[in-house]
Amino acid sequence: MAGEQLSPEMGQLTTNDTQVITSTHNSGVAAAAKLHKTRERARSGKSLLEGAHLLDAALSQNLTIGPIFALPDDRQSADLCNEHELPLTLVTPAVLGRIAATVHPKGPVAVFEIPPFEELATRETLVLAGVADPGNAGALIRSAAAFGFQVAVALNGVDIWSPRVLRAGAGAHFLVRLADLGDDPVSELTEAGLSPQVTVSAGGSWPPPRSQRPAAIIVGNEAHGVDPQITAAAVQTVTIPLAPDVESLNASVAGSLVMYELAWRRNEDSK
Amino acid sequence: MAGEQLSPEMGQLTTNDTQVITSTHNSGVAAAAKLHKTRERARSGKSLLEGAHLLDAALSQNLTIGPIFALPDDRQSADLCNEHELPLTLVTPAVLGRIAATVHPKGPVAVFEIPPFEELATRETLVLAGVADPGNAGALIRSAAAFGFQVAVALNGVDIWSPRVLRAGAGAHFLVRLADLGDDPVSELTEAGLSPQVTVSAGGSWPPPRSQRPAAIIVGNEAHGVDPQITAAAVQTVTIPLAPDVESLNASVAGSLVMYELAWRRNEDSK
Repeated sequence: MAGEQLSPEMGQLTTNDTQVITSTHNSGVAAAAKLHKTRERARSGKSLLEGAHLLDAALSQNLTIGPIFALPDDRQSADLCNEHELPLTLVTPAVLGRIAATVHPKGPVAVFEIPPFEELATRETLVLAGVADPGNAGALIRSAAAFGFQVAVALNGVDIWSPRVLRAGAGAHFLVRLADLGDDPVSELTEAGLSPQVTVSAGGSWPPPRSQRPAAIIVGNEAHGVDPQITAAAVQTVTIPLAPDVESLNASVAGSLVMYELAWRRNEDSK
Repeated sequence: MAGEQLSPEMGQLTTNDTQVITSTHNSGVAAAAKLHKTRERARSGKSLLEGAHLLDAALSQNLTIGPIFALPDDRQSADLCNEHELPLTLVTPAVLGRIAATVHPKGPVAVFEIPPFEELATRETLVLAGVADPGNAGALIRSAAAFGFQVAVALNGVDIWSPRVLRAGAGAHFLVRLADLGDDPVSELTEAGLSPQVTVSAGGSWPPPRSQRPAAIIVGNEAHGVDPQITAAAVQTVTIPLAPDVESLNASVAGSLVMYELAWRRNEDSK
């Protein structure tokens, strides 16, 4: 993530269009900025990603991407767009600041079409069931990619396609299989051949119970945990053992630890 | 963390002083609000904590606490202050909003004196060496408390006593042993009888190397990792095995996973 050093002798950027948008009222800029709102993302089916790393990850997945906004001296974005034969829209720092979520944006910022959810596969699964903090949701998706889990999204949590969740996911959104769940997530998981296991702060098993079926690890809201109806329906609960005076771990840490433990066991079993 | 329900028939609050501060220019309010600035915390040796859970955790540790600001209908804070025989300063929502870090503060918000660092003990240690995100630093301190680690703070990271780190720590600041490190952290850790091990995204050992000495797990900056000089001096490195297309985990997840693994091994060894 280190900044690319640009020196004047590197010459002109290779974009054909040298026009730079200077107005934050430009219609394309205004349309992109609106995508910070959950409702506008739901309406348009589009979202925003920020940074060369995320853009690179998205470009590798054949998503529909554009417009892509970058500063005139951003050679890395120019190169990426050239390589994928995509147009680049040059903007001033003030315009980039209007579209970006970060305080001192370096760019690029790109609009992309949110890909459709896939069907639940019969494989180990992380279930986001009310996770509200964008940093936690992103970190969990990142861990799911790292440990070979698919991700299933239940109702009532943060929008996983918000720019902040994408940022915390560090590209993992474009690596994991993503499915969504309806009103009765536990039945859906069970019908897909999975073993639903709810992470709870006390009283669950450790290590996670063994099952013939792949585990579906359910992580709930940071303050309120998993919905009691879901916990009751899931039957199995897991609790990471902690020092007696500590109530709980951060939600992304807890979910990631359970995935790590299951990935490690999977690896040991396959030896 | 569920909100306490107050009904009118519960009667008057038990504070003796029913005066409510309505001005955000009140000198005590202004002094407290300044503590959101790192420099002011360093100058005064004080910080701010927010929420009944954190206040309760701080009160259990005999810290010097006050003033404590709360809304007039906040019975939980009134009860806590009564119990500890501390005065409560009642404020309007607008005044609380000036002091609090959250958007819709429920209170209480309390000023407290930052406790001095302790000496490094010869026991398992988490080293914060450049962790910059308040949520990550707080989650790591929370995990350290959960897995029985002390925390050592090296230069150049986020101020662990910032209100946002305290919030993410969920009270763990008041449970763990906290030490600080100077210019040569690896030498200090080694002299304290510890085995420094740096978390790196590739090329390190897994599981963490065994040593006769307690491990000191060094976690670095989210974007740039651990300072190369520290990594070179530490000799031992650890890397959590990830899927091939995933570069790294969130910093708080990675550090917590290493602590979990060592706590689990400690537990197995003691059987």
